[in-house]
Amino acid sequence: MTAVPLMVELRERNVVIVGGGHVAERRIHSLLQGGASITVISPVIEEGIRLQWEKGNLKWEKKYFESHDVDGAFLIVVATNDSIVNQSVIVASPPNSLINAVAEADKGNVEFPSFFRRGKLTIGISTNGASPQLSTKIKRELQTLYSEKYEDYLDFLFESRQLIKKSTFDKMHQKLLLKELLSDSFLDKNKQMKAMNWFGKLPKNEIMG
Amino acid sequence: MTAVPLMVELRERNVVIVGGGHVAERRIHSLLQGGASITVISPVIEEGIRLQWEKGNLKWEKKYFESHDVDGAFLIVVATNDSIVNQSVIVASPPNSLINAVAEADKGNVEFPSFFRRGKLTIGISTNGASPQLSTKIKRELQTLYSEKYEDYLDFLFESRQLIKKSTFDKMHQKLLLKELLSDSFLDKNKQMKAMNWFGKLPKNEIMG
Repeated sequence: MTAVPLMVELRERNVVIVGGGHVAERRIHSLLQGGASITVISPVIEEGIRLQWEKGNLKWEKKYFESHDVDGAFLIVVATNDSIVNQSVIVASPPNSLINAVAEADKGNVEFPSFFRRGKLTIGISTNGASPQLSTKIKRELQTLYSEKYEDYLDFLFESRQLIKKSTFDKMHQKLLLKELLSDSFLDKNKQMKAMNWFGKLPKNEIMG
Repeated sequence: MTAVPLMVELRERNVVIVGGGHVAERRIHSLLQGGASITVISPVIEEGIRLQWEKGNLKWEKKYFESHDVDGAFLIVVATNDSIVNQSVIVASPPNSLINAVAEADKGNVEFPSFFRRGKLTIGISTNGASPQLSTKIKRELQTLYSEKYEDYLDFLFESRQLIKKSTFDKMHQKLLLKELLSDSFLDKNKQMKAMNWFGKLPKNEIMG
């Protein structure tokens, strides 16, 4: 695969996971964060999946896979340990569905990169299967480099951007101002507050509202 | 959006881009890298898009948008400067299609993060629209941090992994060996060659082949 990284909104989307083992469990963790509507198809499930099921966070159909289980699915995770079942899931999938084939990535069209968030900032790392350990190592390095301070910093950048865009400054001046805010010194909460205070007082462009 | 980062295989997938301006052009750049089968719907197109069209890299339908244009599309990029047209593209899109609504990200379900590659390594950065400039800044920082040496390094890790997995070492020992290779010293081409030479001579597990 030479896949392209995309950010995909999964909120309330039908995600069908065929299989109830450890890999399914790991996927469920990311998918729940994204607000997906998850159905697990498997006669047995891991303890962690059962816990999410008991909390009402996902549906569980305690049975073997049947072709109609993937009807209308937006994303399908193929994660049983039986390659014949896995193949039949892929064959049954709707033409344009997203398919993550855990054991044989080539047969699907989606992979889950390592990733972490700092509020609005998301960084994803994929090695296309070459070295999952390197993905994890890079993720840890970047988590240190872009610390938890970035959570508030991103909110600050977002709010500043709204205020600056509404101001009477021309495009060029707006761009320069926004660029200023990329200096590391603005990771400081006090400096953020002072700047917000100033941006709030900027004369507003009446046309923009 | 609280979108989830995914790596999506676009090779030979139908991607319809409605609009022929600068944004469309930027998207085409990423999409061609991913091997997508692109159709641009627009009465006029930017010079850069025309060039790709002349090279045979994409189809161009020189016309205004009609509902059937998105039939069967896997990914749709909504990029005209007319919000009524944009809305009608979204309405016409098949139920489970991926939609990148450039002007109003909320109306789509896909965003394109900033990203760069080092061979098999892909790192994607998204700020969920809070600060495109910060995405670009972080991308540049990471391009320096993970230099072009990583291209060969990833191939080395991939090939080493195949050889080690085929060896008679037990799982535990294999894991430890793979972990060793994450030391920065293996960014050195000579050290990679020595290691590969050694891995190639490891006794093979006959059952695995």
